[in-house]
Amino acid sequence: MPLEKKESYAVAVVGATGAVGREMIEILEERKFPVGELRLLASERSVGEEVAYRGKELPVDLLADGALGGLDFALFSAGAEVSRRFAPVAVQKGAIVIDNSSAFRMEPKVPLVVPEVNPGALAKHQGLIANPNCSTIQMVVGLKPLHDAAKIRRIVVSTYQSVSGTGKEAMDELLEQTRAILAFQSAEPKVYPHQIAFNCLPHIDDFDASGYSKEELKLVNETRKILGDPSIQITATTVRVPVFRGHSESVNIEMERPLSANEARALLSATPGVIVMDDPKRAVYPLPLEASGQDGVYVGRVREDRSVEHGLNLWIVSDNLRKGAALNAIQIAEALTKAVRREG
Amino acid sequence: MPLEKKESYAVAVVGATGAVGREMIEILEERKFPVGELRLLASERSVGEEVAYRGKELPVDLLADGALGGLDFALFSAGAEVSRRFAPVAVQKGAIVIDNSSAFRMEPKVPLVVPEVNPGALAKHQGLIANPNCSTIQMVVGLKPLHDAAKIRRIVVSTYQSVSGTGKEAMDELLEQTRAILAFQSAEPKVYPHQIAFNCLPHIDDFDASGYSKEELKLVNETRKILGDPSIQITATTVRVPVFRGHSESVNIEMERPLSANEARALLSATPGVIVMDDPKRAVYPLPLEASGQDGVYVGRVREDRSVEHGLNLWIVSDNLRKGAALNAIQIAEALTKAVRREG
Repeated sequence: MPLEKKESYAVAVVGATGAVGREMIEILEERKFPVGELRLLASERSVGEEVAYRGKELPVDLLADGALGGLDFALFSAGAEVSRRFAPVAVQKGAIVIDNSSAFRMEPKVPLVVPEVNPGALAKHQGLIANPNCSTIQMVVGLKPLHDAAKIRRIVVSTYQSVSGTGKEAMDELLEQTRAILAFQSAEPKVYPHQIAFNCLPHIDDFDASGYSKEELKLVNETRKILGDPSIQITATTVRVPVFRGHSESVNIEMERPLSANEARALLSATPGVIVMDDPKRAVYPLPLEASGQDGVYVGRVREDRSVEHGLNLWIVSDNLRKGAALNAIQIAEALTKAVRREG
Repeated sequence: MPLEKKESYAVAVVGATGAVGREMIEILEERKFPVGELRLLASERSVGEEVAYRGKELPVDLLADGALGGLDFALFSAGAEVSRRFAPVAVQKGAIVIDNSSAFRMEPKVPLVVPEVNPGALAKHQGLIANPNCSTIQMVVGLKPLHDAAKIRRIVVSTYQSVSGTGKEAMDELLEQTRAILAFQSAEPKVYPHQIAFNCLPHIDDFDASGYSKEELKLVNETRKILGDPSIQITATTVRVPVFRGHSESVNIEMERPLSANEARALLSATPGVIVMDDPKRAVYPLPLEASGQDGVYVGRVREDRSVEHGLNLWIVSDNLRKGAALNAIQIAEALTKAVRREG
């Protein structure tokens, strides 16, 4: 089902009232994506809410099989269960689905795409395209030019992930807990198993028998699939920190060939989507607070690691709701519309 | 100058009103250290303040050469500059100095001691003993039994360090900034170069020309000295997080010989000072908030790392003011008093 060449497209946002859904709607407007119809879909709980788009309040309708016809694009961000149930319906009715959940990412027939990194994978899509996990996207954007130049053999990554990765209710929880603690009241955890305010939780998503969390395994498996290199060795520790928006990553890499910090910075500076901020003596380095609301992947603290042959350390930060989710999904849609314009 | 065998000792706390100094005074009382005289010393700014000890308010006196006579122990925690100026004076006047600053740690003649890890180094002291950096202490306590069992070849560590490591004024800054942000006011940074509330700063101490911070180099150099093994390869990324108390570390190690996660947990469980908290499926893992005010080094998230031969990942948490500073200093003093009791 190739995309038709059109002046404008019918687009649905599934999960329109969630943290990522709202961001998708904003970004569609901001980037002037050629939207004809915009259909906002969500679960019963959100039906009747309104979301602003191009100066109007659009109503949120119920997600149901019948609501998925006549679409060019369906942008899903309502969790894996909703995607498993409704994404195939949307595809069957003719839409291209760009799915932000983990439901289909590792299926061999489903392209897992970061447009700056593996745009070629889009050519083979069969109606369903997966958007990678937030922590994976920013890491592969930062590592791709280094992998191309010197072939990465191993990655050791530790993350500092904001609560917006969990969703709106987790942002509320951080705010409410912080407020309670400042008022000397107790801070009951609801979304997370422990207090997140003024704390760090080494726990993102469920754990498997080996002791790794699903978030950690996503970083391993998705990175290999996107870079198209199953030989890269990766180990991850993912940690939730009391930050509202913006994920940070401490990334250590070993490469096959030498690459100096200066060479790495030069390669990164020339990479679309990457902004190098690296003058630590003047306190210039990426910060989640400054990346918040921005489109770029920020890279700094680039240092040669002498503890291993051809090693580098990097600090990679990006807004997990934008490049880590909503923006990347819309960039996928943009890549598809550009491809048909070129062909036509 | 060996310690004399006495019923009780004259002890000075230099930097008595700082975050670590206050903790030292609490711990001396808590652990019933045989204190005869307790002398509280600080800079002019703090003279006249009082600090509670054994139900009394003790006055804080001015740190000066003349105040350093007649002491058995002088516990310094007032920064490297103060230690460089006054620690040699205290030693010259007959005290054993246990110095929490970085001033003398890497001097070959100065033992750098974590009593559970390298108590033997104490025997050779010449009046001055250095207390390691907070982030180093908890890491070496957690790694020592694994190093003994399987020889660690390389360490990749990323830290999540609380603001109390900077001092009391940084704790106030996190509190004030958080309060301001909740009131929709701007949060001016004073202690740190950027807002710390709801943010992560990959910046602890000054940077050198290679792009590493002093804190990162301390983790490298102090770990080698304490473990007595200059061949261990270490690389570190140190990050300040909006947590009041308790440092967390994501530690990846490569060993010479195989060691399973189960074997590592068993070794750690049998190590004095270490508490294993490792049942992630039931949300049991170390947390800085829970380690706060506690004496132990908490280790969890122990996992085999298949990305390298004989690899392990660990999550190590401890209270940076207690085991990371004040408690370790007093444990050094305890080790010395026990040694003279044994000899006598």
